[in-house]
Amino acid sequence: MSDVRVIPLGGVGEIGKNCTVVEQGDDIVVIDCGLAFPTEEMLGVDIVIPDFTYLIENKERVRGIFITHAHEDHVGGLPYLLPHVNCPVYATEFTHALIRNKLEEKMPARELSLKTFRPGDIIEAGSMSVEPVRITHSIPDTCCMAVRTDHGIVFFTADFKFDFTPVDTKLTNITRIGELGREGVVLLLSDSTNVDRPGWGPSERAVTEGLRNVLSTAPGRVLLTTFASNIHRMQQVYEVAAETGRKVAAVGRRMEQNLDICERLGYVKIPKGTRIRLDELKNYPDHQLAILTTGSQGEPMSALVQMSKGSYGRLQIKAGDTLIYSARPIPGNEGAIWRTINRLFRQGCNVIYDSKVPIHVSGHAYQEELKMMLNLTRPFYVAPVHGEPRHQHVYNQMALDMGYPDHRVFTLCDGDALVLNDTSADIVKDSVPFGRVLVDNSGTPGVTEEVLRDRYNVANDGIIVVTIALDVEKGELVGDPIIQSKGFHGPSGVIDRAFEVLVDGLSALGREELKDVSRVRSDATEIIRKYVQKQASLRPLVLTAIIEI
Amino acid sequence: MSDVRVIPLGGVGEIGKNCTVVEQGDDIVVIDCGLAFPTEEMLGVDIVIPDFTYLIENKERVRGIFITHAHEDHVGGLPYLLPHVNCPVYATEFTHALIRNKLEEKMPARELSLKTFRPGDIIEAGSMSVEPVRITHSIPDTCCMAVRTDHGIVFFTADFKFDFTPVDTKLTNITRIGELGREGVVLLLSDSTNVDRPGWGPSERAVTEGLRNVLSTAPGRVLLTTFASNIHRMQQVYEVAAETGRKVAAVGRRMEQNLDICERLGYVKIPKGTRIRLDELKNYPDHQLAILTTGSQGEPMSALVQMSKGSYGRLQIKAGDTLIYSARPIPGNEGAIWRTINRLFRQGCNVIYDSKVPIHVSGHAYQEELKMMLNLTRPFYVAPVHGEPRHQHVYNQMALDMGYPDHRVFTLCDGDALVLNDTSADIVKDSVPFGRVLVDNSGTPGVTEEVLRDRYNVANDGIIVVTIALDVEKGELVGDPIIQSKGFHGPSGVIDRAFEVLVDGLSALGREELKDVSRVRSDATEIIRKYVQKQASLRPLVLTAIIEI
Repeated sequence: MSDVRVIPLGGVGEIGKNCTVVEQGDDIVVIDCGLAFPTEEMLGVDIVIPDFTYLIENKERVRGIFITHAHEDHVGGLPYLLPHVNCPVYATEFTHALIRNKLEEKMPARELSLKTFRPGDIIEAGSMSVEPVRITHSIPDTCCMAVRTDHGIVFFTADFKFDFTPVDTKLTNITRIGELGREGVVLLLSDSTNVDRPGWGPSERAVTEGLRNVLSTAPGRVLLTTFASNIHRMQQVYEVAAETGRKVAAVGRRMEQNLDICERLGYVKIPKGTRIRLDELKNYPDHQLAILTTGSQGEPMSALVQMSKGSYGRLQIKAGDTLIYSARPIPGNEGAIWRTINRLFRQGCNVIYDSKVPIHVSGHAYQEELKMMLNLTRPFYVAPVHGEPRHQHVYNQMALDMGYPDHRVFTLCDGDALVLNDTSADIVKDSVPFGRVLVDNSGTPGVTEEVLRDRYNVANDGIIVVTIALDVEKGELVGDPIIQSKGFHGPSGVIDRAFEVLVDGLSALGREELKDVSRVRSDATEIIRKYVQKQASLRPLVLTAIIEI
Repeated sequence: MSDVRVIPLGGVGEIGKNCTVVEQGDDIVVIDCGLAFPTEEMLGVDIVIPDFTYLIENKERVRGIFITHAHEDHVGGLPYLLPHVNCPVYATEFTHALIRNKLEEKMPARELSLKTFRPGDIIEAGSMSVEPVRITHSIPDTCCMAVRTDHGIVFFTADFKFDFTPVDTKLTNITRIGELGREGVVLLLSDSTNVDRPGWGPSERAVTEGLRNVLSTAPGRVLLTTFASNIHRMQQVYEVAAETGRKVAAVGRRMEQNLDICERLGYVKIPKGTRIRLDELKNYPDHQLAILTTGSQGEPMSALVQMSKGSYGRLQIKAGDTLIYSARPIPGNEGAIWRTINRLFRQGCNVIYDSKVPIHVSGHAYQEELKMMLNLTRPFYVAPVHGEPRHQHVYNQMALDMGYPDHRVFTLCDGDALVLNDTSADIVKDSVPFGRVLVDNSGTPGVTEEVLRDRYNVANDGIIVVTIALDVEKGELVGDPIIQSKGFHGPSGVIDRAFEVLVDGLSALGREELKDVSRVRSDATEIIRKYVQKQASLRPLVLTAIIEI
């Protein structure tokens, strides 16, 4: 029997770009294919995807990509992988509905192989099989994935919480998870995002009361912002709005799209007459209105941020409005979110961003729920995923406290292979190409470190462009050099003085040296760079262009 | 009697760059002169200071600058104001000790007029007087400021909390604040940073137990990071370290400097033999060591961040270390802080960033403390300061709930004048020049919006530099144009194709058009800009340099 290799291409030691390879003999199964959002250091980067080299090089062996749920950090990499590795993508009807459009933008529909499963199906994948099991999370139709191998089940929890009162009333199949545990889970790959929260997280349903408090008492319109994929939250808003006599309109492209899809498929059940179009708002008094809006992460182009700046054509904030901030800031977005909220307050909009009765709950399991998952699946080996090193550390400490011995608990890194057979499990470091691939605003992957470094330098101190005309045959300058700057700020006159220093420096060069274009270029660059650094302690990017006459 | 005008130049509707003018007849008193930290949008900006134009234009009238405490957001603007407005700076001995060095770097010591007060002194300032009153905060010798005017006392709470067990045992003079209230406070300018926290904040002393838990049980060295100005926290570490048998070294320039100053002046009392130098760490076993370090905001050049990257020459992290994160992230720094913490975990360092027993407490009053301040001072008018619009909103709601009528509660903006006389108080909008002045990394104030916009564009999509040689007399191009790019990334070959489009475009120009340098420049710039935007949806900065032959 061949070893089983479990190789995360993304999603361990980080939150985002989840993508894991399970490999046995000639067969490869991929669980999820997500993106990550750039950190503030990745200037001009739109999204981050895993390095798919290993899958592309082994595309003949890939039996399928299995999607646990429709969040971007689990599906957003597909448009960049599928054009290179065309294999079936298995997901629920709901998940396919949400991602189909994006995939069809990247490749012809006839080339896509989107296969729908239901929880409980068993899908053959070469010598392995995959069984999705229903579990609760903050988006409909999330599934754990049980990958059957020759050495036991590799069990992916997916992102989950144990929610006994989910908004869509579809419960986790706890019994089936337990049965799989009894059958034999060799490895559990568990969500660990909220492992540092003690106890048991509140149900999505808990938010209903928080919403009811606001919608029944707010004097004017109520706006609510959340993730465009948070279908359950929108369902709750429609229900509570109907109950409190408010009509609901939605703004923001993604949110409107998702609502349309979900209403059509029955994943959102809107009480009759509750949903209105934006242009119907004027037909109702303010206290009978609610508005769903994107922008919960302070995205500059979102409806909410533009409303906060008074620059959104379709809708204006008015004094007396109330905004419910029903989301959690993704770390790094806090600054933009608070600026948005403050601008709303300045316009006389009351913002509810915190409340004794919750207006938002997390979709991820707290510590006691994570322990329950360990109890149900009783894995031989365990490794936390969907967490940063701090979460992995706390999760593993928890497992040790529950009696797991040290050698059965793993801290994986992207690119590691966890090699399993009937007697052992070992980590092989850097077993495949891995890393982060940066996709720029034009959608082109592969922004390099050098490009980022240049951007960083210019972003900090600007750029100085030196233009020199050179008669290479005679070995002399033609006219004066030109110095231009952009994004540069320093003590007054520093550029003028730099020009003089440059002219002096170049005039010291002999005829032979002036025939050497690259010599002149590097000299000019260095003269300017050193002068500006010495005089102003600044390090602008210096670019010298030489025209040969 | 003249009206009194209270004019915040900074610090209302924001947290940072606190600086308020109180003006009566010919006399001006300034309370605090702080800086703010840049938001992530202010690329290449080091600090932000208020626009001091009004003070500079009226420098003959400024009777003194009164400093409530030594935090940067209350003193950091002084080096930029004093060279233009040389007037006495009144502060406690401690505050002067902490800021003197920085001021002397900017101007000769003999030109500085640093005057020391003690709480309870009454300092004449033209027709007004100023009385500092001791209050508790997270830095020693913080004072409220009672400014006596012809229309009553204008009372600045400064940053404060009511801490009944302060680390230095120096208590708030509650009685004196009450007496001033009885004498007649016409206007209270109150801290509002923590108004959205219900109840009463924990004492600084509460942290002692949290520190004791860690220092007595950690298996190896204990590092603690906090703000370099958090003298009380350092005092606690020395005390608990002595108690638990650990020696303490400090790393980080600012922290070491502050410790030296405070030890010399007696503001830190270090138990005998507890403080050691960094090079003495090797003389003790790990479990007898503690280390104070800067870097609590994830600052790239700080000791902690460099240690987390393994690039700090003076000290290396080792597995088994424990770090206590004893600070609060300033919004916007979260990303950098979590990255630092995760890198430490990866090195085997356990990081305690949250704990049931507090390892950090805020220095700002919670809601019940803010109510107590209102009860003590019983002001006629009230305006929250040191808060963003969301804090001002919640504070004013609290004041209304306490029975203040709407017209006695003000939401100020920077640059507003609150004009007080015996019968009324009114806001005059934009009464003086105001705004944020951006200081770049070289220390030069005045980074413009245009510079920031250029930096932002280049940071996102890079820069393309076009160089063209032109024979203006003949009206023809000399050789081919040159296209260079920096920080640019797009679909492959886009620059090469842009070059061809440019050559085509220029060759379509007639002889007369080619004699017009600015025409050629704008044509070339537009051709490249449009082509790249159309082909790649990118908007790099395009700079065209033309050499005239």
